[in-house]
Amino acid sequence: MALGTSMIMRLQMDKTQVSFGEVAGAIGQNGGDVVAIDVIHASPESTTRDLTINLPENVRESMLQAVGALPGVKVVNVSDRTFLAHLGGKIEVQPKSPVKNREDLSHVYTPGVAKVCMAIHEDRQKAFSLTVKRNMVAVVSDGTAVLGLGDIGPEAAMPVMEGKAMLFKQFGEVDAFPICLNTKDTEEIIQAVKWMAPAFGGINLEDISSPRCFEIERRLSEELDIPVFHDDQHGTAVVVLAGLLNALRIVGKELETAKIVVLGIGAAGAACVRMLLSAGAKNLIAVDKEGALVRDEEYAHEMWNWIAANSNPHQERGSLSEVIRDADVFVGVSRPGLLTVEHLHTMADDRIVFAMANPDPEIDPELAEPHVRVLATGRSDYPNQINNVLCFPGIFRGALDCRASTINEEMKVAAARAIASVVKEDELNELYIIPGVFNEQVVQEVRKGVIEAAIKTGVARRTPPEFR
Amino acid sequence: MALGTSMIMRLQMDKTQVSFGEVAGAIGQNGGDVVAIDVIHASPESTTRDLTINLPENVRESMLQAVGALPGVKVVNVSDRTFLAHLGGKIEVQPKSPVKNREDLSHVYTPGVAKVCMAIHEDRQKAFSLTVKRNMVAVVSDGTAVLGLGDIGPEAAMPVMEGKAMLFKQFGEVDAFPICLNTKDTEEIIQAVKWMAPAFGGINLEDISSPRCFEIERRLSEELDIPVFHDDQHGTAVVVLAGLLNALRIVGKELETAKIVVLGIGAAGAACVRMLLSAGAKNLIAVDKEGALVRDEEYAHEMWNWIAANSNPHQERGSLSEVIRDADVFVGVSRPGLLTVEHLHTMADDRIVFAMANPDPEIDPELAEPHVRVLATGRSDYPNQINNVLCFPGIFRGALDCRASTINEEMKVAAARAIASVVKEDELNELYIIPGVFNEQVVQEVRKGVIEAAIKTGVARRTPPEFR
Repeated sequence: MALGTSMIMRLQMDKTQVSFGEVAGAIGQNGGDVVAIDVIHASPESTTRDLTINLPENVRESMLQAVGALPGVKVVNVSDRTFLAHLGGKIEVQPKSPVKNREDLSHVYTPGVAKVCMAIHEDRQKAFSLTVKRNMVAVVSDGTAVLGLGDIGPEAAMPVMEGKAMLFKQFGEVDAFPICLNTKDTEEIIQAVKWMAPAFGGINLEDISSPRCFEIERRLSEELDIPVFHDDQHGTAVVVLAGLLNALRIVGKELETAKIVVLGIGAAGAACVRMLLSAGAKNLIAVDKEGALVRDEEYAHEMWNWIAANSNPHQERGSLSEVIRDADVFVGVSRPGLLTVEHLHTMADDRIVFAMANPDPEIDPELAEPHVRVLATGRSDYPNQINNVLCFPGIFRGALDCRASTINEEMKVAAARAIASVVKEDELNELYIIPGVFNEQVVQEVRKGVIEAAIKTGVARRTPPEFR
Repeated sequence: MALGTSMIMRLQMDKTQVSFGEVAGAIGQNGGDVVAIDVIHASPESTTRDLTINLPENVRESMLQAVGALPGVKVVNVSDRTFLAHLGGKIEVQPKSPVKNREDLSHVYTPGVAKVCMAIHEDRQKAFSLTVKRNMVAVVSDGTAVLGLGDIGPEAAMPVMEGKAMLFKQFGEVDAFPICLNTKDTEEIIQAVKWMAPAFGGINLEDISSPRCFEIERRLSEELDIPVFHDDQHGTAVVVLAGLLNALRIVGKELETAKIVVLGIGAAGAACVRMLLSAGAKNLIAVDKEGALVRDEEYAHEMWNWIAANSNPHQERGSLSEVIRDADVFVGVSRPGLLTVEHLHTMADDRIVFAMANPDPEIDPELAEPHVRVLATGRSDYPNQINNVLCFPGIFRGALDCRASTINEEMKVAAARAIASVVKEDELNELYIIPGVFNEQVVQEVRKGVIEAAIKTGVARRTPPEFR
């Protein structure tokens, strides 16, 4: 399936030589679809119009040539809609109330502001009610593992972090600000975030490469009194668990007894393993390049040693091909092509496959589909998309509202159960195990679950009125 | 003059015992003025109302007691309007366009965002057009010199920095974000700002104590390719120069020949000295606790040695009382009470006095007024307020629009001349030498002057269309 895009083409058309119908025809014949028209200039002889066109990425050049070759047509300019959406950045900082006169100024700035400053100086906790700290999350990246693009640097990471800030606000009413750091050093990143923490009520780490991300998250969680959450790890893990809980309901199996194989023990994979164990999974086998992780091996990463010690109860050894035998569930957070149809046939009946390598899954969904009961991927063009957007707005909404000091395993499990609960019993089926990203119930349910878990585990420093 | 404040009082009133007229009467008799009423709850027997009341700070308690003592009146709650304006902070981060559906999501986030990231990865300068860097300023403080409150810490400094961000947006359409750093170490502050610089198009340093502020500003200016501006120094200096240019026009004297005494050579004072020298002043004497700065002394601060070497051409020595003789202009950025009426009488005719110690000037304005031709202060309750709000929104608006790599002396002088120019020849008089902060012309004129100066001095990296 070709990737779709859209563009805005400004055309000057000589009315004596060409009709708009001919132009639209040429666009259509070349695979484009005109979805909007704006007239920029019109005279008796010619018109200039902006045409917004949806088209597959790969026909862009041939369509431009065909349109440009029409007699009387001049292509003045071509803009890409995605680039236009990024001009000047995607977020802005707005005053919550206007400053129209001296009276306003005296309340929000000098001289009135002085007494608010002194109230916080006397009790630092008041920053949580009297400053943006109440609702502000830093989206922190060093640009080393951006999407599938790798180490592209902090400036190039900004569009992703700005996009994330948009989604935080749009879905969770959380204010978020992108902090892209011009250093890759673990200690320097930790230091930078600690220094700038006073303005923030939470830290969302993003697109920081493994294994540095583990140490950065661990240390910041320990050394700051606000929640620190590496979304690439835990966001993915929460949504995987949510989907898996519902998939298991469909096939009538239990998380506690299902045999689960997780392939790819990087940042996201390790978090999936921990999350599934926290939620009650027992017969779980973690597999990476060296094969299944087992207790009596010594691994380079501390995280791998922990996983080896806490999973694989029957000490199954060997490659994916060996340990996937009789598995009920496959969770892939690895690379395209690692899972084959032959693998699927050695699994147990009613098999569940989460193939989440991005953008191309561990197995082609079209190929896998006839051989599995439930299939989920990271893609929006197949059913059951495992998308972090289902998690981070709600989990921070909840953590901020109860002023949680951390986001612990119980809160993450609660978030997963909340996401799963949005799919009602009578809606649940093989092609609908997880709600869509625009389902407005999700953030409300996640918030509720997270706050309840925070209160129960004693990390909430405030009880919102409806939980009293 | 007592400082005014306002409060919101929630009263429950038993209709059988008291009328609203009696309540309003009691408020009025005790110095309060009811400016708004909101009915919260009403029943046949009682009503609950929120009354917004303006009052002098010092009658607050007595008025509350008097109202509470009325029969049938219960004071449910008292909120301060200034505190209410700060609940949850004063700024928010908004998406510039909504994310309503998958189509929107694919343009501002995955998968579309990837090509924008790669465009910046290939040419880092594109961050200035495709991210918030185009219009985003960091308001950076360590909370060591906040207003007149001193070292109150980064959390307590936040309300001031948030207020500043509001003013940036409201007056200059500049997006600004508060960064309050949890360190006071010069090197650490420099490091922190350098690490987080990728998201920002400019750095506004704020309320960082002297002398660290000099080194921090100098180093960041050298080591970053975006403008760095310490507003406490240069904002004040620009507005002082603006006011002084107009004051000199009134008395028919020239900056080049006027004798100018600057008292208080801290951050703001040092910047005023440099600004006035840049603009053409020659007979300028800088005075601090040790008296007038002279060339053959060795001072602890590097800045003082520079000033001594570049001012006081006649090497006048001694205290303020000595060097103020025959001065045409006094500029005070020091402490209350240092300037006396006797000092004024030794000055030249048509004397100009800028007494800007905060909140109490170097000389009581009421006392000075009969003895000077032009008087300016930092206060809003006297004419000629020297207020930084006249400078920073416009100077950054201009610097961002021409993508200036720095804000140099020429740009600051241009900003000062632009502010002065807003007061027209036929409006200019002793009580109106500087425009008010809500004068909308100011930001436009400052922007224009700053861009022209940036282009002329070769620090503009982009020429806005109207300057081509």
